[in-house]
Amino acid sequence: MATLALASWATNLTYANLTPSVVDAAVKSVYNWAGCAIGGYGQDAPQIALHTTLPFFGGHATSSILGSNGSSKGSTFGEGFGVFADAQVAALVNGIASHVDDYDDTHLETIIHPAGVVASALLAVAEAAAEAGWKEGPISGRDFLTAFVAGVEAECKLGLAVSPEHYDAGWHITSTAGSVGAAVAVGRLLGLPTAAMQHAIGVAATQVVGMQEFFGSMTKSFHVGRAAQGGLLAALLARNGYTGSLQALEARYGWTHVVSTRENATAYFAELGRDGKWEIERNTFKPFPCGIVMHPTIDGCIQLRRQASGEGKDVGAVRSVELRVNPHVLVLTGKTDPQTGLEGKFSIYHAAAVGLLYGEATPSQFTDAVVMDRTVIAMRQKVHVATDEGVSDDQAYVSITFEDGDTLEKHIEHAVGSLENPLAEADLKKKFMDQVSKQIGEVRAERAYKAFTNIGNMTDIGKIRMLY
Amino acid sequence: MATLALASWATNLTYANLTPSVVDAAVKSVYNWAGCAIGGYGQDAPQIALHTTLPFFGGHATSSILGSNGSSKGSTFGEGFGVFADAQVAALVNGIASHVDDYDDTHLETIIHPAGVVASALLAVAEAAAEAGWKEGPISGRDFLTAFVAGVEAECKLGLAVSPEHYDAGWHITSTAGSVGAAVAVGRLLGLPTAAMQHAIGVAATQVVGMQEFFGSMTKSFHVGRAAQGGLLAALLARNGYTGSLQALEARYGWTHVVSTRENATAYFAELGRDGKWEIERNTFKPFPCGIVMHPTIDGCIQLRRQASGEGKDVGAVRSVELRVNPHVLVLTGKTDPQTGLEGKFSIYHAAAVGLLYGEATPSQFTDAVVMDRTVIAMRQKVHVATDEGVSDDQAYVSITFEDGDTLEKHIEHAVGSLENPLAEADLKKKFMDQVSKQIGEVRAERAYKAFTNIGNMTDIGKIRMLY
Repeated sequence: MATLALASWATNLTYANLTPSVVDAAVKSVYNWAGCAIGGYGQDAPQIALHTTLPFFGGHATSSILGSNGSSKGSTFGEGFGVFADAQVAALVNGIASHVDDYDDTHLETIIHPAGVVASALLAVAEAAAEAGWKEGPISGRDFLTAFVAGVEAECKLGLAVSPEHYDAGWHITSTAGSVGAAVAVGRLLGLPTAAMQHAIGVAATQVVGMQEFFGSMTKSFHVGRAAQGGLLAALLARNGYTGSLQALEARYGWTHVVSTRENATAYFAELGRDGKWEIERNTFKPFPCGIVMHPTIDGCIQLRRQASGEGKDVGAVRSVELRVNPHVLVLTGKTDPQTGLEGKFSIYHAAAVGLLYGEATPSQFTDAVVMDRTVIAMRQKVHVATDEGVSDDQAYVSITFEDGDTLEKHIEHAVGSLENPLAEADLKKKFMDQVSKQIGEVRAERAYKAFTNIGNMTDIGKIRMLY
Repeated sequence: MATLALASWATNLTYANLTPSVVDAAVKSVYNWAGCAIGGYGQDAPQIALHTTLPFFGGHATSSILGSNGSSKGSTFGEGFGVFADAQVAALVNGIASHVDDYDDTHLETIIHPAGVVASALLAVAEAAAEAGWKEGPISGRDFLTAFVAGVEAECKLGLAVSPEHYDAGWHITSTAGSVGAAVAVGRLLGLPTAAMQHAIGVAATQVVGMQEFFGSMTKSFHVGRAAQGGLLAALLARNGYTGSLQALEARYGWTHVVSTRENATAYFAELGRDGKWEIERNTFKPFPCGIVMHPTIDGCIQLRRQASGEGKDVGAVRSVELRVNPHVLVLTGKTDPQTGLEGKFSIYHAAAVGLLYGEATPSQFTDAVVMDRTVIAMRQKVHVATDEGVSDDQAYVSITFEDGDTLEKHIEHAVGSLENPLAEADLKKKFMDQVSKQIGEVRAERAYKAFTNIGNMTDIGKIRMLY
């Protein structure tokens, strides 16, 4: 009955069910996603995806490609509002762009990055819904946030139900669970009845996108875009009468059993919407654009650089860097010799090196040029990693030894950006503005920040692109 | 090195490498696929998929929707040639239509239905390639068949490498391996260099579509269409520089290890193209539109009806039907009480009943009406199934007992349509004509038969739709 339980809960979720703290978390998740998608637009992965799909596969230009500045033929909007595409292309490209910098958000217990798949599908559909006739009347910000929360809860509870076995098998849980989240979100937005929602969940669940072999490559972010498309398509097919299974998640040869050696979906779905059990309240926002398991190390290295500087010591004179971290760090981010910016995002050696050398880790520290920089390469080679089961995922012990034998040490108990040490709103705004300004300029970035932080008060989401 | 081996072989495959028997098998596979796709067009699943995707997601109308009779706006063809869509929509809809009747083809060793995913992607791309600029000059029938064979060998060898563990885990191997086959086929057609072919394989492999829970529902055939789309998209992305992993199949967290507990890809890929090792030569064509494991039983029931009739006995007076079959039969087709035509295709009870009552099993015996017919239901309830590991997949023992106590028995050693007892060309033509005539009339059906059986001699595949 797990599929029914999820579908029924999502179908009945209303804005009134959301507590102020849930709404706050949802809005932050949405604008953090939008900032990442706008900021990531110029990268190769979303650009190739856009230019591969738009010219010959693009249908009605209903939905915005975030981060674009030009204008697109057939758009109902004027010049200057950027490129519009059909909802499928927009979901793919925005999904890729929002994840390509590995800068988005993280539900730490599952390592799901929740907003990317769900919001990319949802905004694309919300913008298209009126013209496509998928829903009568405008979609309000409250409708949007309700659907978004439904989708995030769905993917995170589903992820919890198969964690950690599913991830340990090599799946990229963000996209594998994400397609179900996207289907639930779009299904909720379009007001699917419960049985159709069950079928939407099924059609989404049978599309399992994403394996860890592709981490550190363009294909990692493809997972997010493709899962958004898959979930969106599933919801629209189900809306039009497409059927599959009403027990897609729990059946013997359904999702949970096929993709995991253990599952506990019934128990997790029973918690849906209960006080203190909202997963969106546990969403965190990345301060650094790279694999989350590297964040405690980066935090430690940045702090040590500051400390060294205060003591008049130069990190150029570092002889060795010793890390003691959770074993996940080497499994996921053990690339010793990255060759590209994307690979650098999965190299703990690179992460430590740039933290020490630059005192920050922004998208600028994960470019191809910085990854191939001689000073950075030399510093990477000084980094030694010891793993320790007793060190949790948001912890790290960092020790740097200088050529004169001096040693500085830092124990990060909870990395910046973790649940216990979250980014402040000012940090989130700075992150948004830094990314977005580079892509569409500071003036539009300010307007975009206002638009997305105010999304809950909009009466017609279809017009959000006209606000910035 | 498995991914490299596959990519390198496919990249270098030419028409001259294909033996006459390989070409013959390929042509049969293609026209059998076309007949199924044309015949399946009117079913709910492809119709819903078409109407969900075409109006708002459809781009340039370059590629034919098989089986359609109308005309579509923006088509470069005139009235009467049917609906055209962009290559993505066409791949989805044709893939669904070709599989919705469970009437297509079977590579028995893997239970892959090879043509559906590969040909649906390939024809859609071949028809679009000139207008989209994906390839210079027209695509010949020889190019098409070479690419088709590359795709079929790829999916079947990959399937063999993980059989039977992958299927036993609950995956629908036709689509899970099929997306890789489609990517290889499209990649070969577009002349991708080896490294790009490896990336195409990777982007296709990370999209794992299809679980057995959806057997007997619209979503089963969705798997075929979606995998065709996924493979097509992968090849086009790779052509435009999208990258992922060069070791997508063999890596620790790549395809074979994530989706199977065992793999042997290197050994199977080493056989690619060797004499006597062409998998396409082992493709078989379904005489009955339903799960392949039911075919020996249907064959037996049809023969027993004929025998009873010859002896002046009426099957209306049958008291009980005893089957002894391979255990797969009940695992895959054990539905005792099907409610729809699609469910009837996965009910050994229904299969035996219609074989006895109608003396045939064509799409007409798997309609909702026949599945709900009282006489059929009564006969289904007389069927008893015993399973026996010693009975192979293409064998069945059928025994019918009449109310007067008389018993007739039949042992099917190799079901009609199996490799040892294949359909003759006349049977394949009859199957094609029966399906296609119902959809587009007998005159066009004859023309379509000529067009698809002659595909190897065409100089421009882009014009195939103008031939019928």
